[in-house]
Parts: sequence; C-alpha cells; structure tokens
Amino acid sequence: MAAAAPPPPPTGAPITLPESDPSGNTLFTRIRLATVYDVPHIHKLIHEMAVFERLAHLCEATPESLANTLFPPNPPPPFTSFTVFLLELSYTPFPPTPQNEQFNPILKSIHLELPIEDPEREAFRSKAIDVNVLGNDVIVGGFVLFFPNYSTFLAKPGLYIEDIFVRECYRRKGLGKILLSAVVSQAAKMGYGRVEWVVLDWNVNAITFYEQMGAKILPEWRICRLTGDALQAYAHTNT
Amino acid sequence: MAAAAPPPPPTGAPITLPESDPSGNTLFTRIRLATVYDVPHIHKLIHEMAVFERLAHLCEATPESLANTLFPPNPPPPFTSFTVFLLELSYTPFPPTPQNEQFNPILKSIHLELPIEDPEREAFRSKAIDVNVLGNDVIVGGFVLFFPNYSTFLAKPGLYIEDIFVRECYRRKGLGKILLSAVVSQAAKMGYGRVEWVVLDWNVNAITFYEQMGAKILPEWRICRLTGDALQAYAHTNT
Repeated sequence: MAAAAPPPPPTGAPITLPESDPSGNTLFTRIRLATVYDVPHIHKLIHEMAVFERLAHLCEATPESLANTLFPPNPPPPFTSFTVFLLELSYTPFPPTPQNEQFNPILKSIHLELPIEDPEREAFRSKAIDVNVLGNDVIVGGFVLFFPNYSTFLAKPGLYIEDIFVRECYRRKGLGKILLSAVVSQAAKMGYGRVEWVVLDWNVNAITFYEQMGAKILPEWRICRLTGDALQAYAHTNT
Repeated sequence: MAAAAPPPPPTGAPITLPESDPSGNTLFTRIRLATVYDVPHIHKLIHEMAVFERLAHLCEATPESLANTLFPPNPPPPFTSFTVFLLELSYTPFPPTPQNEQFNPILKSIHLELPIEDPEREAFRSKAIDVNVLGNDVIVGGFVLFFPNYSTFLAKPGLYIEDIFVRECYRRKGLGKILLSAVVSQAAKMGYGRVEWVVLDWNVNAITFYEQMGAKILPEWRICRLTGDALQAYAHTNT
C-alpha cells in the first residue's frame, strides 16, 4: 500500500527515518540449481523443516544419504530426476551470471520494512561456486525439491514439488512464492502439463494462497503409502 | 478353498466335468517391461481406463504423444523415469525367458473356474519381441505406469504408481495384485523407501484392499494441481 510521505523534519534537526520506512532495505534473491557442495545446508534445511512440522523423529536424512541420492555419480540432467533449487539472499546485488545451458539463475529483489535478524547467518553462508566473486555476504534462505511426474491422460510429464521451505526469519516476505514461481516457470518452459504438490487439509491459509494462484485442490483423492516393514513383507510374500 | 470330491459317475456313463471344476483352466501371466512396440496397446488401455472412470473427455493421449514421452530417443534406464509394466496372459505356459539385466519378467499362473470370454482378443494380441517363440496366443490384459519419487525425510527414492489397470473381462481374478506386487518387489529390490499411489475416498473396496496389504491411507493430505491456462498465466506473470 502507498503511504503518505512523512512531514519534513524541522530544519537543522538530525534526520531519523521512521522504523517502517519502506525505502530502507532491499533484499536481493537468487534461485539457482543446488550442487553437492550445498548438501550440508540442504540437510540443515530439511532438519529445520522436520522440527517445524513436529516430525523430527521421522527424519532419517543424513548429509551422506542426501549426497548419495540427490547428487549421484554421473547425474542425469537437471529436471529429469530429483532436482533442488536453492534460494540465496544478499543485501548487495548479485552480479549477472554467465548463461548456463542447464538453468539460468533467477534474480529478483524484495523491499523490506526492516532489516532481518538472522540468528543462523554464519551457519547458512552460501557455498555457491561463484562465492569468491560474490564475497561472503550470500545466505541460504530456503529450498524447493521437485521431480518429474507423468499424466497418462495428458501423455505429458509434469513437475511434482515434494518440499518447499523458507527459513523462519525470512517468512511472510513472498520468498516461498519466488521458489514456487521458479518451478512453475520451469514447467511452462519445458511444455509440461501440470505442477502438483500436497497440502494438509486444515492448513486453510495455505489452501487459500494456492487457490488464489489458480491451483485446484482435489478434494476426493487420498494418498496411499506402503513403507517400512509392510513394504518388505508384501514384497517377499508376493514374489 | 478345498472342495469335497464329487461322487464317481455311474459306470459306463460319459464323464462330464461340473462347470465350476477348478482343474479346468489355468491362465499363465507374465509381467514384462513395455517397449515402444506396445504403444498402440498402452494407448487403448489408457482410453479404456478413461471410459471406465467416465473421464474420456479429459483423455488427450495419442499413440504419438505416448511414444514421444514414454519411449524417447536415448531413453534413461528403466525405473529411473516413467516406466510401464505390461501384463500378458496366455493359456499355454510362457517359455523361460533369458536373463535380462534390466528386468527379468515375472511369470505366475492363476486357476480359473471358467474360461474367460475376451471380446477384444484380436485387438490385444501382444507385440512382445519374443512373439515368434510364444506363438500368437499372448494377450495384453493390463498395465501399470510408475516412476520414482523422493522422500526428503528418508533421503531415499520411492516408486509412485500413476495408473494401474486391468481390462474388464479379466478383473476380480487377482491380476491387479500381480501388477501391484511387481512394482512393490521392484522397490524392495532397489532399496527404495516407499511405494505410493492415490485412491478416491469413496472407493471403500479399494481402500479396504490397500489397508489389508499393509498400506496406510493418509487422511489429511490433499493434492494441489496447477495446470492448463492457470499454469501458463502464473508462469508468465511471475518471471
């Protein structure tokens, strides 16, 4: 919303900006493909997501298991298998990145009312390969993990978003939308038919947000999951 | 169930087997990886599935679009992307198949109370590459299409079943279970963490069947889908 300009300060008095000055701070954002060097950050983000969902006791991921499964030797091209976009944040602009035939990083910026206190700033300093160019000012703020799915009715692939996460101190600033948009734009670019994800039925705020962006919530479908001992038992009694 | 033996026929009378004689017919089944030669059958199966679901108006798949997306040039190894198992049926046993480094076909058999009338027998004659060895007696009865998904909490891939379909005249004989088992066994063999699929919440029979096999139905999660014009609009207003 546009706010009326504050009255000019009395002549000679020191200028103090009001706390909510919208011209105060700009946060620059970059979405790029994650690499194996980002695994320690991805692991920390997944662990924080599990704590947020009160499911930390179910989170078995280790840096080693993530590295092995997300960044195997001879990896397939991005977007053909499990793919991670990392959200990086900086208070100085990102330099233009060289054209990348796999994925051109997406640069945006958002205006902050107040600077953000990040209690884990040191732990989340980016491991970007261009960190020497960027300086040491780039912080990892979140991630999205997605992979192709397929619709037989459309006879087209789509993209399925398994997880999308923004660190707590950076929430409610539109950063989740920047991550989601990056995946949707990639799907459109590849001519894919759908982007899908899941939401908890009691998360009314999220459902409203998704409906406003044009997504349909499918009311009748339920996910079935065979896992753990039940999977092993079924596999071995039916072979 | 074991049935009491029928009394012996009077001496000299012709032996007529009762209609429900369980020793009458054996249907041999084979699960194998589909190839591009199977696309016409896969297309027909998808169309029959759409008609069964009363969603034929939403089915845009053509043989060409299926061939392009399921069997692209330089295909990735099976199970790393979209994968189709075909269910083949024959009244004569399948010969042992040579060891295949990608996937060894799964051979089973089921006992029928009565022979099955298949009104589309001619249209579904198998295009198996070993059809010359097999003779012309092999019929395609169904398919399952699946692909890898990923759990960040487990840091492991899983398999997601997009569609499983058995032609109408072959239903209620355990053939769907044979297709499902093949996918579950493959997941276990690869050390994957989960097999997942979706079910309509009013399909009580299916839910009971899945729960009896050890699957959990997740009550709270809802699928969100961005597709068609809404996907294009969102992609282009956010780049």
